[in-house]
Amino acid sequence: MQKPLILLSNDDGIFAPGLYALYEQMVKLGEVKVVAPDSEQSAVGHAITLRNPLRAFTWMRFGEPFGTAVIGTPADCIKLALAEFVDRKPDLVVSGINQGANTGVDILYSGTVSAATEGAVNRIPSIAISLTSFTFKNFQPSADFILKLAQKVLENGLPVGTFLNVNVPPLEEDKIKGYIWTRQGLSRYVERFEKRYDPKGRPYYWMDGDKKYDENSGCTDDKAIADGFISISPVHYDLTDHNFIEKAKDWNLNLVSNIHA
Amino acid sequence: MQKPLILLSNDDGIFAPGLYALYEQMVKLGEVKVVAPDSEQSAVGHAITLRNPLRAFTWMRFGEPFGTAVIGTPADCIKLALAEFVDRKPDLVVSGINQGANTGVDILYSGTVSAATEGAVNRIPSIAISLTSFTFKNFQPSADFILKLAQKVLENGLPVGTFLNVNVPPLEEDKIKGYIWTRQGLSRYVERFEKRYDPKGRPYYWMDGDKKYDENSGCTDDKAIADGFISISPVHYDLTDHNFIEKAKDWNLNLVSNIHA
Repeated sequence: MQKPLILLSNDDGIFAPGLYALYEQMVKLGEVKVVAPDSEQSAVGHAITLRNPLRAFTWMRFGEPFGTAVIGTPADCIKLALAEFVDRKPDLVVSGINQGANTGVDILYSGTVSAATEGAVNRIPSIAISLTSFTFKNFQPSADFILKLAQKVLENGLPVGTFLNVNVPPLEEDKIKGYIWTRQGLSRYVERFEKRYDPKGRPYYWMDGDKKYDENSGCTDDKAIADGFISISPVHYDLTDHNFIEKAKDWNLNLVSNIHA
Repeated sequence: MQKPLILLSNDDGIFAPGLYALYEQMVKLGEVKVVAPDSEQSAVGHAITLRNPLRAFTWMRFGEPFGTAVIGTPADCIKLALAEFVDRKPDLVVSGINQGANTGVDILYSGTVSAATEGAVNRIPSIAISLTSFTFKNFQPSADFILKLAQKVLENGLPVGTFLNVNVPPLEEDKIKGYIWTRQGLSRYVERFEKRYDPKGRPYYWMDGDKKYDENSGCTDDKAIADGFISISPVHYDLTDHNFIEKAKDWNLNLVSNIHA
């Protein structure tokens, strides 16, 4: 039987230690292909490069080809990889291990998550994994967990259009309390912009902000992490608010006809 | 009573005729503030600018200040507008009128949609509106519809975190059959990359692709448009696949504990 083909990417860049930690585990499960941005691509959201061409080149590690570096976004990497750099459809896409949380509203902005979304759009079981700290540098607990989870996903698959968004707390392995299936929390950022002036007196604005948690109840990703658990959120790219469709049917917008979904 | 404050943005740029068409209608409903990118920002997804500062300047139209142009993405525009350019929380955010469809998987890539998402994240009722053609240049039917819809949203509000993604078919007003409350279709792009070589012999790749419709049934945005209706999809930024959480509880990942959501 052919070994599973596993496509890896991230948004921290192809040189990031989290990607190496992920790679070391995934080679235990199958054939691994790395296609990742050549530079940090945080907060690029689900951007794709349409107005410029993409560049790609072989990335060396310890004198050996490690993968393909793309001058583009994580979503570009998955698209280009599927079209050009794999000889068959991958069995799994894994994006990470990201340095920093991708919980709650971060999912909208995250390049790490966008690579997994792109996998899901292409009907490939996909996982995004993040270590929820910028200072805790031990990727081993995350790496050990993704090995188990990836194996489960290879065995069981995922529903079409759904991927798993995993966040791991910054704790040593024996301190992690377990894992929880969570929903995406509805946290958000409250931005501050620091206004400065350049030498010619023209203003510019630096974005900064604090994450705000509007809800204290329920089993959210942020709460799982705060409680010392690994969070696994199944995320779907069908963004429809199906509940609201029912309510909206009473709206009369004065057109010729108003057919209800 | 204070007039409603309506914040407008788009991804085609502050000079785009679709934005002007939207503006002309929204001033009938309240006080209007325009904060939009200074250049085209299509397919930027929900990108935000974290590593560079943002620039903003007044944009003139017919010798009068029309709005604020931001060197950044549509999501940047909404964030910066809320922090710096409005004196109170807007009652409504409208993004558009985009030239080109934002249906199905486009929602992931669309800058137009990301501005409305950012409004929803900030608990402001929000609408994204697109004319589903790059060649049909009559924005009037779209503009007339958004006037009615915006009024309804100002009256009724929207659930927290939900916004409306509107697509208008490229038809004259009397040819539009009505409107339908739809769900986001699960269309996707099947990419082709055209590989070329630069004068130094190094390869580069141009992305191209066709939209593929995997489903023919159900009341999707793409189907409504194909049938000559305006499509209104309520879209939520809680991306959790709640159904899958139930199924996943049977997975045993061999950790100390496995608490179910």
